Formats: sequence, structure tokens, C-alpha cells
Amino acid sequence: MHRSIWAAAIVSLTGLSTVSEARESNTQWVDTFIGTGGDGHTFPGAVVPFGMVQLSPDTDNPMRGVSPQPEIYKRCAGYHYDDTTIVGFSHTHFSGTGHSDLGDLLVMPITGEVKLDAGTAEDPDSGYRSRFSHDKEWAQPGYYGVELLDYDVTAELTTTTRAGMHKYTFNSAKDGHILFDLTSAIYNFENKVIWSDIRKVDDRTLVAYRATNGWARNRQMYFAIQFSQPIDDYQFINLDNMRYRCMNCLDSKQKHSTIENKAVKMTAGKAVKFVASFNNVDQKPVYMKVGLSAVSRSNALENLQTEIPHWDFEKVRAQAKQDWAKYLDKVDVEGTRSEKRQFYTALYHALQAPSIYQDVNGQYRGVDGEIHDGKGFEHYTLFSLWDTYRALHPLLTYIDPDRVSGMIQSMLVHYQQSYEKMLPIWSFHAHETWTMIGYHAVSVIADAYLKGIRDYDIDLAVEAIQSTANNPVYDAIPEYKKYGYVPMDVLPESVSITLEYAYNDYAIARMFEAMGKNKLAQQYYARAMSYKNVFDPETRFMRGRDSKGNWNKDFNAYEAKYMGPFTEGNSMQYSFYVPQDVAGLIDLMGGDDAFEKRLDDLFDTPLSADMIKEHEDIAGLIGNYAHGNEPSHHIAYLYNYAGKPWRTQERIRQIMDTLSSDKPDGLAGNDDVGQMSAWYIFSAMGFYPVSPGDLSYAIGAPQTPKVTLKLVNGKTFTTTAKGLSKTHKYIQSVSLNGKPLNRNYLTHADIMAGGELKYVMSDKPNKAWGRDNSARPPSLSEYK
Amino acid sequence: MHRSIWAAAIVSLTGLSTVSEARESNTQWVDTFIGTGGDGHTFPGAVVPFGMVQLSPDTDNPMRGVSPQPEIYKRCAGYHYDDTTIVGFSHTHFSGTGHSDLGDLLVMPITGEVKLDAGTAEDPDSGYRSRFSHDKEWAQPGYYGVELLDYDVTAELTTTTRAGMHKYTFNSAKDGHILFDLTSAIYNFENKVIWSDIRKVDDRTLVAYRATNGWARNRQMYFAIQFSQPIDDYQFINLDNMRYRCMNCLDSKQKHSTIENKAVKMTAGKAVKFVASFNNVDQKPVYMKVGLSAVSRSNALENLQTEIPHWDFEKVRAQAKQDWAKYLDKVDVEGTRSEKRQFYTALYHALQAPSIYQDVNGQYRGVDGEIHDGKGFEHYTLFSLWDTYRALHPLLTYIDPDRVSGMIQSMLVHYQQSYEKMLPIWSFHAHETWTMIGYHAVSVIADAYLKGIRDYDIDLAVEAIQSTANNPVYDAIPEYKKYGYVPMDVLPESVSITLEYAYNDYAIARMFEAMGKNKLAQQYYARAMSYKNVFDPETRFMRGRDSKGNWNKDFNAYEAKYMGPFTEGNSMQYSFYVPQDVAGLIDLMGGDDAFEKRLDDLFDTPLSADMIKEHEDIAGLIGNYAHGNEPSHHIAYLYNYAGKPWRTQERIRQIMDTLSSDKPDGLAGNDDVGQMSAWYIFSAMGFYPVSPGDLSYAIGAPQTPKVTLKLVNGKTFTTTAKGLSKTHKYIQSVSLNGKPLNRNYLTHADIMAGGELKYVMSDKPNKAWGRDNSARPPSLSEYK
Repeated sequence: MHRSIWAAAIVSLTGLSTVSEARESNTQWVDTFIGTGGDGHTFPGAVVPFGMVQLSPDTDNPMRGVSPQPEIYKRCAGYHYDDTTIVGFSHTHFSGTGHSDLGDLLVMPITGEVKLDAGTAEDPDSGYRSRFSHDKEWAQPGYYGVELLDYDVTAELTTTTRAGMHKYTFNSAKDGHILFDLTSAIYNFENKVIWSDIRKVDDRTLVAYRATNGWARNRQMYFAIQFSQPIDDYQFINLDNMRYRCMNCLDSKQKHSTIENKAVKMTAGKAVKFVASFNNVDQKPVYMKVGLSAVSRSNALENLQTEIPHWDFEKVRAQAKQDWAKYLDKVDVEGTRSEKRQFYTALYHALQAPSIYQDVNGQYRGVDGEIHDGKGFEHYTLFSLWDTYRALHPLLTYIDPDRVSGMIQSMLVHYQQSYEKMLPIWSFHAHETWTMIGYHAVSVIADAYLKGIRDYDIDLAVEAIQSTANNPVYDAIPEYKKYGYVPMDVLPESVSITLEYAYNDYAIARMFEAMGKNKLAQQYYARAMSYKNVFDPETRFMRGRDSKGNWNKDFNAYEAKYMGPFTEGNSMQYSFYVPQDVAGLIDLMGGDDAFEKRLDDLFDTPLSADMIKEHEDIAGLIGNYAHGNEPSHHIAYLYNYAGKPWRTQERIRQIMDTLSSDKPDGLAGNDDVGQMSAWYIFSAMGFYPVSPGDLSYAIGAPQTPKVTLKLVNGKTFTTTAKGLSKTHKYIQSVSLNGKPLNRNYLTHADIMAGGELKYVMSDKPNKAWGRDNSARPPSLSEYK
Repeated sequence: MHRSIWAAAIVSLTGLSTVSEARESNTQWVDTFIGTGGDGHTFPGAVVPFGMVQLSPDTDNPMRGVSPQPEIYKRCAGYHYDDTTIVGFSHTHFSGTGHSDLGDLLVMPITGEVKLDAGTAEDPDSGYRSRFSHDKEWAQPGYYGVELLDYDVTAELTTTTRAGMHKYTFNSAKDGHILFDLTSAIYNFENKVIWSDIRKVDDRTLVAYRATNGWARNRQMYFAIQFSQPIDDYQFINLDNMRYRCMNCLDSKQKHSTIENKAVKMTAGKAVKFVASFNNVDQKPVYMKVGLSAVSRSNALENLQTEIPHWDFEKVRAQAKQDWAKYLDKVDVEGTRSEKRQFYTALYHALQAPSIYQDVNGQYRGVDGEIHDGKGFEHYTLFSLWDTYRALHPLLTYIDPDRVSGMIQSMLVHYQQSYEKMLPIWSFHAHETWTMIGYHAVSVIADAYLKGIRDYDIDLAVEAIQSTANNPVYDAIPEYKKYGYVPMDVLPESVSITLEYAYNDYAIARMFEAMGKNKLAQQYYARAMSYKNVFDPETRFMRGRDSKGNWNKDFNAYEAKYMGPFTEGNSMQYSFYVPQDVAGLIDLMGGDDAFEKRLDDLFDTPLSADMIKEHEDIAGLIGNYAHGNEPSHHIAYLYNYAGKPWRTQERIRQIMDTLSSDKPDGLAGNDDVGQMSAWYIFSAMGFYPVSPGDLSYAIGAPQTPKVTLKLVNGKTFTTTAKGLSKTHKYIQSVSLNGKPLNRNYLTHADIMAGGELKYVMSDKPNKAWGRDNSARPPSLSEYK
């Protein structure tokens, strides 16, 4: 048995370089391990595009209060490539976040003595965890497999949108067990589990429930579990209540009081586990299906039965692969193996969230905690908007505008269901975490609206945007409106908040202007100029300011201080955060040359660890430029605006060459739910949305010989980079559909019209190229 | 302000004896304090018939693990008449139970310094509790008022089915507070609160949530709260998480991180409180409405807004009184003030549960924990069936058969939604507690069905009964079927369980026989004879027996041992538990005279406290007869079956005279959700349902000169007791509609035909009366 399984695994692992490659979809290029090393925080397990289930191995779940923070941070996605043991397979994971939660319903197939604790990585035999080796581990989109060495069990996972499927092959043991540890969680800590239960419904079916208090408070998750063969024996474990330890006392003839019906096969509490035991597992693999729901056990069961009505693991696996192929084949990339692996893995990571958060019957749990009927639209969760408004959401408008509509509808019902009447900030699983700053949902909506994606209630969108941008309870908006900036004596991170509000207001103005709401648009255009109120003309830096107008006395442009005026960044970085009015910023900073010098200062001045010691997110450094965190993402493109596009071209190449690879540690920082990946995808094609909402893209430097994007209007948009190499990093010339293009930006209309964008590359900058920018969408200053 | 309120209160308190009495409904006779002393475990607060809200003062909520059990047991209903302080007013209470839970959303109006803990009864000033005096406390059905002496606050409460209304008159303070303590609970213990939250939606509205793990595991309750005037100031308290202690930091200009939006007016956790402060409360009372729901916050708000769409406290109070009058005026009683007070208070206590557990929109939470749409029927909870099948449910078939249909429908959906496919045992608030024994839901259904109440799915009822009575997971049913009794080596309480199963099986047989399912009926009639299998012919007692057939060697007829063969009782009592075949039992015990002697032994042999020390429920003793607990309730009527009805007449009088009064301690034991009260009502009229399902009532001795029951068929059934007095306790003769009645039982048909049952009483027994019992529903032995 062992051999055939392992041989099959080898084929699927090494299939990447066989002759069958030609017929393979682009799924073949995805390496789900990219980002699982370093601080990428991605997971290697099974997921379908935008799926509710992320079924993936957890290599360790260190406890807060027991383990040091770096150990915990390292395992935001449950799995880290450095680890050598697996504690089990759980069904929910974030991809690339910088804070974490989830890890619901950890399952572990085991043999021999049943251990009830995971044990330690240092002494794997102390618990139920197993050693594993990357040599005996394989994955492809929608599928993951590994040899659990301590048990000689081959574990394979695949999934649909709402139900995961497990295949456990016991290669040498005669009897096997499947352990369910409802105490296990990512970012776990004592008392994280508010309540949980598990019930044996019949010999092949379990249902379970867990509420946790983590990043999301009192998050609800329901599970339905089915086995391919009857359970032969089982054990309920309830660590916090010895009364429930033995639930089948009647069977074992133990005397018990009739006050509790111990014959009922369920247990409930805060520390609950369950062991299902199977005899003769050497005969055939044990399969298991697990349906998830945030609404109810019965919905979890319906999700499972609807999406996986059979026991054909390979069929589910093939469907998952096909789901991915449908998306990944929308883009054709030519390039080196490494470039293709990086590109398609980036696309794979970009298409995981916002994810479906709705049952097959349409029900979902809203941010009000209540169950709603979502018939008529797809409901999504996981809005990491401070990260993803920048490039991920603009990218999705090309890949799947229908889903973008669903995401916007989901944000609008969030607004309606929120007690604060706010669009989401950083929300997941029916909870607003209030993490990060700004109200970037408005720019996601504005960008989509301006691109013609309007399949949602537009009046409601306007109402939601207005309510959010003028909200009395959210981060000092009243003071922002009163003073023109957020005073530092009112709220920490005041400068970053002011700058991001100003950009958000620009996006609103653009949308409202396009709707003909000119008076309103003018108000928001005026608010969008607020960035000037935190620009200190003396130091020429963005700088904290109190409510009396005084500048921060304790100012250090390099320092990123927790609870200081900047958000996960310093003034060196944030002083460039005026995407809506780079021209105005250049003026403030003293003109094109001074601006170029300031950009060079950013990239070339080393940043001491001392300056950022409170911020684990600030990573992927080139000088003070932090590619691993979002506030830097647009900055390399800003040379363009000072008339120096070849400097942007240099910087993009520099970032690509030094901060990106196709190795597990190939991401320079957290993927942040696809934002890092979206940066890569746009930048590899040679352009980037510096200011979503202006419908333009700054041209950088292509990093891939050829990319063809199949557009939803049936057209294709192709970029080619003639002569591209590491040294031929400069643009010599550009043509669009055969006509010379002498501007350093591209418009949304250019892309949607289809055709070919042809870059000719050179090893020398062409300083004359890209100067005809007179038709560029006007800089904010010019709107007034 | 103080004077007028107090004067009004005095009027309503003393109104019971003024000239307006003649125009008053029978609500005037209810004394809601009867049962609040001793171990009656009733509550004095505001409730409407079968209402979801029981808004009532809690005089103490001692903690398990801190206070001794008697202190906790004493306060099953939150309130005890012995107490001298009130900790607050909470919205859910059991009436008369012997175990407890609930006490949801404790509210306390306070003045001066805000104390956050309740403090102790010994030192009331140590906390927010207040002294009170029964002299300054008053109540009527649907209304309760009290002077909180420490604060000089007059607190008044009234309610609808799903929403409570509070009126707080601050008699001397200028500023007042209303404290919400979400940590307070009845039968409280550390970690009982699984999760809770409270949110200030606007200046007049709060919503809250609490999940508790008590008698019911993970019980959910949602609240919506509205004030008659805006909150002027407020304070969130979160004892288990200092982070949330100050939720309005932005207002008070405290610096905080943007990672959490502290401007959001809510807190959540396991130890949460909230203080609403109001200025100038000396100007007018503060009113508050609180809607409840087991489904959602929005349902709680809808319940509140639908049922109390105004701020007229007196209107709600008048409506609640009218709701009670509608029921209490169905029965007209003549008698002494004390008799009327006892009778109508008993009727008041009998009409509180099973209680509505459904929102105005039809939604309810089922025993599967899920939300269901209950359109088309009223959904009820709180089935204390081991207690209430005996007399309460039979009584309800006369008072409100429509509600009986709803209760049966609720039991049937419970069956459908239960994972075990069981009818309820002892269930409340969407949870089966598995408390007590038997499957008495079947007798409730059978009794109603046989009386022609059939407005529910009959096929489903048959399925549910069959599934319950043959259930593989419930208390040793497989062994009961296999051995003909529950072996004592399989399960404690084995004799009681056997006896009660046998009775339940008789009720099923009666119903199935009436449906023409004769073969099935014969099976259950056979099972109903199982009582003989635990009757030891040697000792002539019911006695434990093991699976090998051996009698319990450790047998003592007087001993009620925890985990012994009897349930809250001893063999002295349980040996009489064969209601379905008293004739057969008499034979076993040696004939009429031997049986009479055994009954006398029960009543006349003192029971030492030693024998029952583990059972706080065994109370209200006459010898070994325990009127305070249900296994004894039918026993006094059994003399009838041995041809000695005058002995029953003596015993009923003895019980009434020694174990019942119109004082707070007037109940001899727990009212048990109306069962004690239903015993009183039937017995006062002179008859009692010894064996529900046989459609007959044993005639005892009337205790009230005249009772007129207005039947739903438009007829009236009147009992009169000519010459009744304490000494004229014997029946001389009986006539029904003018014709002599010489049988010692009454039938359901007799009652429903209407007319007058006339007892003529005497101070001497008429041993010749009551001998013509040839047409009595056959004893079980005769069915075969």
C-alpha cells in the first residue's frame, strides 16, 4: 500500500518537469511553499479560489503567554517551512497576514498509543505530533500531501469551497485513530476557546462547534464530519470537566446518575477532544469529509453533502485543480521557470481572499452576529483593506469583476449590519477588528465603480461611503474634519491616518465627480488636500502636529515608534504617501531634483534596527524602503512623477532581484492576503496602480518577457519586453498596438481596449522616453 | 414625588379589601408571595400567563463553591422571603423548581457612589444591593413594586410576554444610575458566564447578550434595552480584561492605539457590567423596557417594540392584569379569604409554564441549538415533565387546550430536532438537561389525545412516542425491554425508573388502543405490567434487582440514598407507584385491608432525617408521606381503590390542614413549576387524576365550598360542598346533576358534560358511599 501511494505522490510532485507539462494548465507553475518560509506567512495546504476552507498542516501552534512573540508571529499561517513536525491539519487559515487567528478543527491521524497533547517540537514523541520531511511532502493548488513519519501515515488533503476532504493511508499499522483537538488554534492562548462541543451523530458522522475569542471576539464555527467507514471505537475527552470524560459509561457498565444521560454521545466545554478509532485500516485508506459553516451544524452538513456527495477523493482533487486552472489560465506568462513559478504563485496567492463566507443555502453570519439570508449575492469575508486596496483589489477588477461586485455587496451589507454604520476596516468571520487605519473600503468601491463595475446598489454605496468618511466614532474623523488633520494629542498614528484619509477622500471625490455629484466631490477634493496640513515646511517631512498646531518636538524621521504618529512606518516612508497628488508633494519637497534626492535618501540610507524595533512588520528593507510592508509599495514608482522614469526602472529591478525569489522564503515580508503578490504581478507586467481611483498605472519596468491577460470583454492585453535581462532593465521605448507610447503611465482604458504593449529594453536608460505626460489624469492640485 | 407613588402603592396593596373588591377580577386574590418562603421556590415578580419574561427581584445569588448548598437551594427563584436585601431585578426565573439556573440581565437602580459588586447581605453597604422591607413591597399578577431603602428609590416592574418594563422613581436623589450586572446569575459559579457583551447603540438604546453554562449548557439570551430619557453618562466595566475598562477614552482624550476602536461603545467578555447615569431624575421617573430573545439582538428589539410600543407603564401593567384576569376568571371560587387566596395563587402558579420561547416573528431556538421558523404554532419551553405530567398538564387541558396543542407541538419539534430522537425529559431554553426519570412526555400527549386535543401531527406524535419509548441511548431502555425491569447494576434509580416506564407504557397503550393500533397497544399494555418485576413478594416492597434477578441485599424501605434504586424517595413511597394498576398492586400487597395498613404505615411511621439526608427535595412530611415531592402526590387517593374512600377523605384534609397555607411559607415543598399548585386545585375541588390517560379522577374530599369551572365548550362544571368544615371532612353523599353518584371516581366526560357535582359533607364517614365502582375504567390487570 505504502509504495503505490508514495509512487503516486512522486509523480504528482515531479510532474512539474515531465513531458506532460505541455498539456498541463498553469497550475503546474504554482509552488504553494513559496512564502511559507521567512515571514511570508502563507500556508501550503488545500484551498480553492476564494474558498471558505483552507485545509492545511499546522507545524506548531505556540501559546501566547508561554512562547515568545517571534515564535507565534512566525506561525501566523499555522505552518512554517523551518519546522520539522506537524501537529495536525486544520481547516481555516489566513494567507500572509501579520496578525492571526483561526486554525479551526485540528485533525491528526495517529497510530499506536493515543496521546492527547500535541507535545513539543523538541521532543515530538511527547505528544501526538509527527515528524515530517519536505522530501516527503508535496502539493499543488487544491491538494496537499505529506508522510507523517512517526506514524507511517500518508496524509492527503483536498477541498471544495466549503468542505475539506482528507485521505489517510495507514501504511503499516493495523488499527488507526483520528484525533480531533478542539483546543488547538492559531495564535492560541489560555481561555481562547470560549465554548466547544463535539457529538457523535452516528457511526460515520460527527458534528462539532467552536467559539473562540481571539482577534475576532466570540467567533462562531460549526463543523460536520463524515467518515468513509464506521467508527469502531471512540473516546470523548473533556479536560475541563471530569464528569464528561467518559461519555459511554452505559456501554462499559459504569454506574452513573440519571441526572445526566451519559449514553448521549457528545461532550461540551472549553477543552474538548475526540478520538475516532478504526480497525483494519491496513485494508484501505480512511477518507473523511469536513463541512464548515459559520451559521449552524445543519448548514455545515448541507455544505458537505452538497459539495462532496461522493467518496471520490481524486474527483474532488481534480475539481479543485480545475477551479484553479480556470483562473490561472486567464494569464499566460513566458519567462524563466523561476519567473513563471513566482508569477503564478503570486496569482494563486492573490486569488484566495476576500473569501466566501456563506453557506450553500445562502445564509451567512453578519457583522452584527446575526444570521442573514444572502440569496442573490455571494457573501465574502476577510477584508484586509489597508493592505489590499492598493493593488490586489485593482487586480481583481481584471481577473473576476463578478466577484468584485460580490465583495462590494458584502462590504455594503457589512455597513448596514454594523452598529457603527461603517464599511469594513479589517474584518473577518463576522467581526470588525478595527485593525490598521484609514477607510480604504471607499477606494476599493471607487476604483471598481470608475471601471464600470456597478452591479450593486449604487445609492447604498454612496450612503455607506458618506457615513464611513464622516463617522463620529471612527479614528478621530471629527477632529480630522475640524482641524484638517488628526492631532497627535487625540490619537496615535495621527500623521499616517491623516495622509490615508486624504487619499481615501480623493477616491471618493473621483467617484462622486463621475456620478455628477459635483458639490460633494468638491468637498472631498478639498479634504484630499489635508496632507499639506501635516507637511512641515521646515523639515520638509510629514510630521506629527497637536491640536494647537504645534509640530511634534520629539521628531525623528527614521523612527517608527509604537503609538507614535506613524503606522508601521516612519516619516522617511510616510512622507511619500500622497498618491493622489504627487505633483503637489514634489512642489512641497522643492521640485523634481529635490524629490529624486529624497527618494534616493529613502532607498540608500540604512535603517538601524533600533529605529523599528517595535515593528515586526517592517521588513524587506532597501535602506529605509520596506518592501515587506505596504506603506512603501507605491514609492519606487514615484520617480516617474519627477520626470525620472529610468530611476523607477532601476528601483523595480533592484527590488525584484534582491527581495523576491521562488524559494519558500521568497517573499520579503507578509504576503498580506495577496497584496505583496498583486504588487509582483503588476510590477512584473511593468506597471502599477499608484493611486487607485485615478484609473492610471505608473509604468515601471517589465520583469517578464511576455504576459497575456485574457480580459472579461473577450479581448486580450499582452505585454512583451524585448531584450529584457537583468542588465537590460531600462526601457528604451514603448509602443501600444504599434504606436509609440511616450508617456510613463498607462490607463485602464488602454488595458481594456486590448492589444499589445511592447517594451523595448536596454542596458542604458533612455531619459527622453516617457516625457509626454500632458494627458495624464490631473494631479489633485490641478483639479481645483 | 415619593408620597404620591407610595400612596398609590398602598392603594394597590390594600385594595384587596376595599369596596372596589366587588368589581375586581379574581386577580385580587393572588398573593404572589405565597411560596417565596420555606422551600416553595416561587418568585414574587412580574409575569404574564406562560410568559417568556419573569421580571422579579433577586434577594441574593450565592455562588456555588463559596456558599453552602442550602443557601443556594433556598434561592432557586432568586428571591427568598427571609432575605432583607435586594441585589437587583432580573428577567428570567423558574417558578418552584428544585434545581436552578437563569437570572438573566440583573438590573439595579442606584444613587450616589457607584459600587460594582453586589456586596453581602451581612453588610449591604459593601455593595450595590439595597435593604428592603416587606412592609414597603407590593405585588399583583403582572406587577411588582418595592422601596429600595438604601437609595430611596421606588422600583416598579411590569411585563408583557416577551418584554419587561421598569419604572424607577428616585425619591430624593438628583442624579441616578442604572447598573447592569451581566455576571449575576441564579445558581451562579465561577466561569458560569461563557460570554457576554453589552453595546450602547444610541443615547436611549442598549443591546446585550449572554451565554451561560449552567443547568443548560451554553444557553443563549439576547436583550434589547430602551430608556425613556437619554443617558447622560455611562461606564463600561470589563473585569476580566482591563483593556476594555474604559470604552470612551476618545471622549476623555486618553491616548489609545488605533488597533482597537475605543470609540465603539461596547464591551465583551466574561465579566461585563454597564452603568447608565441620568441627571435630574428628581424631575420624573426613569422608565426602561427590556426585550428578550433566545435568537438575536434584533429579535429582542422587535419583541420589545412590538409588545410595548409606548412609554405608558400603567397601560402595560393593566394589560398584564387583564391577561391574568382572562385566565383566573375562568374559575369562580367561593370560600374563606385564605381558601380563595390559596386557590387563585395556585392557579396563578399553575399558568406560568411551559412558557413561550419564541419571538414575535415566529423564530425560536431549538434543542439542536439552531434557529427555526415556528410560524403556525406557538413554541414553548420549560418541560419539568416528571413533576408536571401528574396534575398540571391534565389541568391545562381544561384551562387552555389551545396552549396544550402548542405544548405538544413544541415537544414534537423537540423530538425532531433532538439528536437522540427523544421527546423532552426536563428541558428548558433549547437544552435537554436529562434531569429526573421516565419519559413522561408520552403521558402528557396520551392524556391530551384521549381528551380529544388533537391539533398537531398525530402520525408524528406516534413516531415520537415510539422512538422515545424504545430509545437505545436513554436510561437503560434496552435493558428494561430485555429484563422487564432496569437492573440495579446497570443504572441507579432502577426501581423508580422501572415503575415510571411501566406507567408511561400504560398511557401509550391507552392512546394506541384508542387509535385502533391494537397490536402495538397490547405490547405496551404488557410492558406496563413490568412493575411486578420489581415487587419483591417476600418483603412486599418494590426493591432493587440486579441483572441476574437477585434482590438488592442492602435493602431498607425507609432509606432514600443518592444513586440508590429510588429517585428522590424510598421504597415506602415508591411501592405505591403503580397508578395504572392499583388493583393489581393491592393484590400483590395482600388485599384491601393489608393495603390500607400499608398506606397507614406510610402516613403514620415517622421518617428520620438520617434516612433522607441526601435529598433536600423530600419535604412536607406526614410520616413517610412527602407532600413536598411528587412521588407521593397520588398516594392519599389510593385508599379509594381498597374500598376505603373515607380514609382518602381524612388524608386529604390532613394534608391541606397541616401542609398548606396562604403564607409565604405556605407550600410544603417546591411548587415544581405548578405541579404542587395543580394538586391543590384538583384536590380542593375534590378529585385528582391518579393515572393520567385513564380519563378518570379519584374523588377525594372537597376543600372549598364552591368552585365553578368555565369550560371551553361553553358549559360550566360546578362543585359544591354542603356543610363543609374542618370537622365535616367526610363525604356523606354525592350527586351529579341531581342524580346520586355512588362511585368514588369521576370521569373526564362527567366534567365536560357540565353541570353540578354536589358533595354533602359530614363529620362522620359514610362507609357505604362510593361503592358502585363497577363501571370504573378497568384496572390494567383487567385489560388483558
